[in-house]
Amino acid sequence: MCEASAYIIDGDQQELIMEAVDTVEPEDGGYKLINIFGEQKFVKAVIHSLALVDHKLFFKKTPQ
Amino acid sequence: MCEASAYIIDGDQQELIMEAVDTVEPEDGGYKLINIFGEQKFVKAVIHSLALVDHKLFFKKTPQ
Repeated sequence: MCEASAYIIDGDQQELIMEAVDTVEPEDGGYKLINIFGEQKFVKAVIHSLALVDHKLFFKKTPQ
Repeated sequence: MCEASAYIIDGDQQELIMEAVDTVEPEDGGYKLINIFGEQKFVKAVIHSLALVDHKLFFKKTPQ
């Protein structure tokens, strides 16, 4: 399985927001994450970068 | 390995732009894709959506 962990970058910190993410879909100026267990989470952020072989997705908060 | 194929969405078409993508990094208002063979490609686009279990990344061109 090729799911990944999603992190949000806040300054020089990275906070884990969801594990085992399968799909990421645009929604309401952010993204809806759905993991392999069917759990959903909305993040008000842009996708900053991806490191797929490391199973990591990085989001960055959009300015308010 | 959990690399993915990157597609660019253009209307109702999807064009394959790179296979075996490992990392995606922000660069110059777009993204630099690097695959597991070390090949690089720049896309002037935003990340539209991800389907990781299906090994697919979707980009969408930014308006000129």
